[in-house]
Amino acid sequence: MINDVQVEALLHEDVPHGDLTTMTMGIADRPGIMAFVTRNDSVVAGVEEAAAVLRRLGLEMDVCHRSGDVLLPKTLVLQARGPAGLLHCGWKVAQNLLEYCSGIATRTQDMVVKGRAVNPHLQIAATRKNFPGTKSLSAKAVLAGGGIIHRLGLSETFLLFDNHHNFFSSPSQLFAAVTAARRKLPEKKICVEVKNIDDALHFAQAGAHVLQFDKNSPEELKEWVPRIRERHPAIVIAAAGGVNTDNVENYARTGIDLVVTSWIYFGKPADIAVTIHAN
Amino acid sequence: MINDVQVEALLHEDVPHGDLTTMTMGIADRPGIMAFVTRNDSVVAGVEEAAAVLRRLGLEMDVCHRSGDVLLPKTLVLQARGPAGLLHCGWKVAQNLLEYCSGIATRTQDMVVKGRAVNPHLQIAATRKNFPGTKSLSAKAVLAGGGIIHRLGLSETFLLFDNHHNFFSSPSQLFAAVTAARRKLPEKKICVEVKNIDDALHFAQAGAHVLQFDKNSPEELKEWVPRIRERHPAIVIAAAGGVNTDNVENYARTGIDLVVTSWIYFGKPADIAVTIHAN
Amino acid sequence: MINDVQVEALLHEDVPHGDLTTMTMGIADRPGIMAFVTRNDSVVAGVEEAAAVLRRLGLEMDVCHRSGDVLLPKTLVLQARGPAGLLHCGWKVAQNLLEYCSGIATRTQDMVVKGRAVNPHLQIAATRKNFPGTKSLSAKAVLAGGGIIHRLGLSETFLLFDNHHNFFSSPSQLFAAVTAARRKLPEKKICVEVKNIDDALHFAQAGAHVLQFDKNSPEELKEWVPRIRERHPAIVIAAAGGVNTDNVENYARTGIDLVVTSWIYFGKPADIAVTIHAN
Amino acid sequence: MINDVQVEALLHEDVPHGDLTTMTMGIADRPGIMAFVTRNDSVVAGVEEAAAVLRRLGLEMDVCHRSGDVLLPKTLVLQARGPAGLLHCGWKVAQNLLEYCSGIATRTQDMVVKGRAVNPHLQIAATRKNFPGTKSLSAKAVLAGGGIIHRLGLSETFLLFDNHHNFFSSPSQLFAAVTAARRKLPEKKICVEVKNIDDALHFAQAGAHVLQFDKNSPEELKEWVPRIRERHPAIVIAAAGGVNTDNVENYARTGIDLVVTSWIYFGKPADIAVTIHAN
Amino acid sequence: MINDVQVEALLHEDVPHGDLTTMTMGIADRPGIMAFVTRNDSVVAGVEEAAAVLRRLGLEMDVCHRSGDVLLPKTLVLQARGPAGLLHCGWKVAQNLLEYCSGIATRTQDMVVKGRAVNPHLQIAATRKNFPGTKSLSAKAVLAGGGIIHRLGLSETFLLFDNHHNFFSSPSQLFAAVTAARRKLPEKKICVEVKNIDDALHFAQAGAHVLQFDKNSPEELKEWVPRIRERHPAIVIAAAGGVNTDNVENYARTGIDLVVTSWIYFGKPADIAVTIHAN
Amino acid sequence: MINDVQVEALLHEDVPHGDLTTMTMGIADRPGIMAFVTRNDSVVAGVEEAAAVLRRLGLEMDVCHRSGDVLLPKTLVLQARGPAGLLHCGWKVAQNLLEYCSGIATRTQDMVVKGRAVNPHLQIAATRKNFPGTKSLSAKAVLAGGGIIHRLGLSETFLLFDNHHNFFSSPSQLFAAVTAARRKLPEKKICVEVKNIDDALHFAQAGAHVLQFDKNSPEELKEWVPRIRERHPAIVIAAAGGVNTDNVENYARTGIDLVVTSWIYFGKPADIAVTIHAN
Repeated sequence: MINDVQVEALLHEDVPHGDLTTMTMGIADRPGIMAFVTRNDSVVAGVEEAAAVLRRLGLEMDVCHRSGDVLLPKTLVLQARGPAGLLHCGWKVAQNLLEYCSGIATRTQDMVVKGRAVNPHLQIAATRKNFPGTKSLSAKAVLAGGGIIHRLGLSETFLLFDNHHNFFSSPSQLFAAVTAARRKLPEKKICVEVKNIDDALHFAQAGAHVLQFDKNSPEELKEWVPRIRERHPAIVIAAAGGVNTDNVENYARTGIDLVVTSWIYFGKPADIAVTIHAN
Repeated sequence: MINDVQVEALLHEDVPHGDLTTMTMGIADRPGIMAFVTRNDSVVAGVEEAAAVLRRLGLEMDVCHRSGDVLLPKTLVLQARGPAGLLHCGWKVAQNLLEYCSGIATRTQDMVVKGRAVNPHLQIAATRKNFPGTKSLSAKAVLAGGGIIHRLGLSETFLLFDNHHNFFSSPSQLFAAVTAARRKLPEKKICVEVKNIDDALHFAQAGAHVLQFDKNSPEELKEWVPRIRERHPAIVIAAAGGVNTDNVENYARTGIDLVVTSWIYFGKPADIAVTIHAN
Repeated sequence: MINDVQVEALLHEDVPHGDLTTMTMGIADRPGIMAFVTRNDSVVAGVEEAAAVLRRLGLEMDVCHRSGDVLLPKTLVLQARGPAGLLHCGWKVAQNLLEYCSGIATRTQDMVVKGRAVNPHLQIAATRKNFPGTKSLSAKAVLAGGGIIHRLGLSETFLLFDNHHNFFSSPSQLFAAVTAARRKLPEKKICVEVKNIDDALHFAQAGAHVLQFDKNSPEELKEWVPRIRERHPAIVIAAAGGVNTDNVENYARTGIDLVVTSWIYFGKPADIAVTIHAN
Repeated sequence: MINDVQVEALLHEDVPHGDLTTMTMGIADRPGIMAFVTRNDSVVAGVEEAAAVLRRLGLEMDVCHRSGDVLLPKTLVLQARGPAGLLHCGWKVAQNLLEYCSGIATRTQDMVVKGRAVNPHLQIAATRKNFPGTKSLSAKAVLAGGGIIHRLGLSETFLLFDNHHNFFSSPSQLFAAVTAARRKLPEKKICVEVKNIDDALHFAQAGAHVLQFDKNSPEELKEWVPRIRERHPAIVIAAAGGVNTDNVENYARTGIDLVVTSWIYFGKPADIAVTIHAN
Repeated sequence: MINDVQVEALLHEDVPHGDLTTMTMGIADRPGIMAFVTRNDSVVAGVEEAAAVLRRLGLEMDVCHRSGDVLLPKTLVLQARGPAGLLHCGWKVAQNLLEYCSGIATRTQDMVVKGRAVNPHLQIAATRKNFPGTKSLSAKAVLAGGGIIHRLGLSETFLLFDNHHNFFSSPSQLFAAVTAARRKLPEKKICVEVKNIDDALHFAQAGAHVLQFDKNSPEELKEWVPRIRERHPAIVIAAAGGVNTDNVENYARTGIDLVVTSWIYFGKPADIAVTIHAN
Repeated sequence: MINDVQVEALLHEDVPHGDLTTMTMGIADRPGIMAFVTRNDSVVAGVEEAAAVLRRLGLEMDVCHRSGDVLLPKTLVLQARGPAGLLHCGWKVAQNLLEYCSGIATRTQDMVVKGRAVNPHLQIAATRKNFPGTKSLSAKAVLAGGGIIHRLGLSETFLLFDNHHNFFSSPSQLFAAVTAARRKLPEKKICVEVKNIDDALHFAQAGAHVLQFDKNSPEELKEWVPRIRERHPAIVIAAAGGVNTDNVENYARTGIDLVVTSWIYFGKPADIAVTIHAN
């Protein structure tokens, strides 16, 4: 969760010295009430963070839902009470948190629901390709939408890319290093990005626990997955690169175990209406 | 610009204790070279930030372009040299910075170019609706794309919304407060969000310097702008809400002075290929 | 407002490991009460910050006034209850906040009151020349005293100085750039520092919205203001440089709209007596 | 010394997204040179901090003097070279650092010089009553002016005030606690604030190493100092409260060892002229 | 005391996105209770910090003891109630704080008790040689155990080492500088590290207030202490280097005033059992 | 690696305003040289951090070794040149970093070497039980000593403890949840802490990838490991709780794959001599 330092940083950069408009209009001290209401079907996220921002301003809060809740349109998510000046100070910071996080959560759940309709154990794993500086918010939104985290970062997972291959002078050296890695990291799974069936089988043979296909079509995977499972029944197979809500069912049908996606980070924020009234 | 603390925070959260994969594969100390190359026409941004991340890791850098440069596909933006372990540590953090910022800059310039083809003085002003925690990166990307910043925050600009109106018991009180605000803030422009021609004329009469139409169609504006300018020739007129690269020309044709947009923050990051080779 | 991180930083640098004196004297756990009382007529400021420091220590608080209140001598501002050790830990940090901020607020209001006695719409705008690192506290104190903020910083206002002129090869280029700036920044006022009537008229002609006279005498301004207003009735005129509580009435009489001042930051802190007793 | 985080914080709060004026005027990339020159006799301080700010912006620096140097009027302190946009970004932040710190250093040295003319071993010790949040800058300026630091804070020095007395039910208990404190803190001096000769003699008798007279006149001290020294030749005697550059010689003549002062923090910043030219 | 920023940093680095195990097991929302219980005789410390961590997570707390309390085995120190997911998030961070701090406090008190059995006024002063980045926690633990802080750092105490001697060309210059230092720092004690009786007597003669013997045996000190006290009855004598709980009584018997020790920082953390149950 | 903010924080808390002793002795500006030399056989760590501290002070550095190097006694690790005042400012902070980190690295390698003499693939994995606030330094020291990181934290690994069991009403529910977890986290290994052979076999049957025995004797493990491997040849077996350099060979002989240890964090820092001379 976003911490107090970040809450204060968000407020400070947006409102370093109060809301000039309410102060100048002479209404800063008037009591008011501010409501955050969904405009569409949404999985809300960022609720606790938005509430933390508003509470930090000293506003009195009704928190009606929590991150991960699936809401119908026109549902009240949060309500804040206090002087008009403070309500205006918190409005956009809280709304932005809610809208961006709920956008990610809603897209994540969309993929989860569509994928599992076809393949009940399919997992939707979100990559590290979030907007720089938003890892905590983004990860929490993914979890709220029913997704999982692909990798926290580079220090706790083993994932081999083409860019690593380039440092080996022969395939046999490369495969030997993968086999050795399995022993060196007994508590980790050995994950390898692959782009075709040959590589997949070689790395599986070398000891990879997870094969992550990158930018292959559902048709290719449909053919390859059974061939791999035949020889390596316990192996995990993932599809990454270009999977989104429109094609996730096709990927799910190939028999893979999980989708690795950045797509859920892109697209419009959810739409949360904010109204402020005198109280 | 992103500062050293943020550079270190980005690296630390992604790679707190080194790249486990290169260490385990035994290639962390091998010399390598990493290239960042555009895949599409792009206005690059985040270049200095990506370079700062890589330099912070101790890598030797060639910085071939700077933020704001308009690049063809397959153009080398940055190149880094050093041990494979450090190259892999910096890869995704630097790529993410480049891709997200360049995405914003490219969309901004798209609107600038299309809008000015019709209305040479049109300004594209970006709102505060960036992803929470990314204001500095987002603002810099907007400037790199030729846009301007609508408001830094709430403390240095006067912008009146409907949510403020609700604290006044009568329109005459509201307009009087606007007139007073003009005198209280002699160094600021008085900006007012409006939704129809009547409000526009009343606020103009009360002394507003800028009228910001929210979610009105180009057709409405085409009719209203000349009627307002007739009586208030020095007034500034803005269109906000729903303007994007597809309709910016229509809005530009209405004779407005500027577009206020959040659209440039949404959408996919730019596509920057990264390859790492032994050196 | 000062945030929790800053509250903790202030306490930590002053009292990293408790008050050695009360611990050594064996009285740290004795219950006590600490009172903050004005010694002179003051506009108090920093009250919420001082209270935040004391609350952070776990003390029970009575907050009797708020920033911006105009107080007579011997008025109780704050009172804290708790163990003697904690009262001594918070004493000076809280007192310093109150005294420095109230000093600024009191000087600001002094200028406001004197200036408006002569010119009811006169605004007192505080510069960015506060002690480095104290912008938030200083700005809040200015607002508490009835002043306004001249510029938040360099990124959100346009203010042209002599130091900018030096980059133009001719006056006509300079004035043309000012005229262009008006169109490029449709939501901002174009402010120009000037030192004589000729420059003033040229910049007004080029489209400046605000003329800021620097270090001119009231006599000069008295002659120049009407000459400028005659031709540019809507222009805003400011006086900066050397204005203080002793001469603000003279400046106010010239018909200017605002004074831009750093003077309010200098001078002695307000005098707030602090007494601690056993409770 | 101010650290990188603070340097970046100062710059960021003043110039979060570049200097709007130079960007809009189209001169941000023109090469320029900026000079910082004393206007009066000054002991400069904050030089390294101002240079750090300018260097952080990427400017090329000539640092002509260092903190603590005693300079004549019209002396070049610093010079920076680089694009006009960056020069304007750093101008005021660097100037403010130099001016505030040099003001403190100059006032400190003024007291040192005047006091030592009369009493060659007199020390000028600065209190903790600096502007909240400026302890590092203020302390460094005091040292640059030849002063010493009275107390770093509450955790490393023993200084007894009247506010502590109130927790003792009898003078004998109080004096006994002072005597005990001497043994409990074998590496510290026991310092006690006193207001008259009787208290002074009692606390000296109880084992105080330092007597700090608060708000006593030079006349009183002149009478009391020899009486105390007669019985307690090794004791240290300080004068605090109301000592400033006008009366420091009178206090020095009383035979005290040191002056404890907050006065050096108040008053106007030093005057450092800044000019920027095309290069 | 550890501040909120540090509390959040400790939690964030250990649990950036929740406890994966409880989430995956589907028990994160089940109500539970977590108890922290001593396994051995301990002086507890870090209690308030551990409680701050757990409170920050939103858990309901019973804080049964405070830092500095001397506890028997099987004593309940803290108890937290809330959902199982949050209890597991806080478990190890809170336990680590308690165990490391209590380890230091317990070792400190061990030395205090043993030393004072022989020499009732002996002080145990802890050096700055704590684990880098743990000064606040370590110092608080020392105080909880009845120790004192030798030096906060380098800026507020005068302590001369051999490494300083090397910058003087003759002993007489060195001793003269010590004598001068006494006058320059009238509020500080002049402390000097010495290694034999000759140096000790020379520095005492030059005006040192404290002699700190480094790595001398109890036998040596037993002979030297009376010889020094004979000539310098008010001088303070410390033993540093190699003093620990096994030999502190021998050192105490030599008549020194204090022991300066790093030993209390090393060794195993205290053992605090943590159990979590459904509630 | 420790970042610049932490480097500055370490320096600032130890030396906020310079080294009082060198300043007072009048030797702060004398040129000097400072050498860091091993006293014992050591695996050094913290070298880059110590160098960063000294470089940050502006000292000129010779860095003779890097973290992970195995050094004989009397080996020069680092050397710094510059004014005596700055050398003294950096001395203890740099020495502390070197000594604590090298202590951990040396103990880690000791276990690695002894364990692998018996069991060539044995891994030494360090727990999260480092001193609070020192995770980065501690982890880097473990890696320098040839160890691996057991868990980065709670969000990226699945490790089931007894404290989790308490939330299940029957063993069958518990084992079913473990089996489900395997599918929910396809990219992670399912690790379970066990205390006897029965639990081990049940959890292995339920799908655990790693069994972590807690506080079992080498004798017990010697009997159990083959029984488990017979049925689950691919399973990973770890020993945790009470393993140290004295008994690691006994544990290694049982055929386990890895040891999980906190022991390497405890014990004395390495001994690195520091001498400063005039240059």
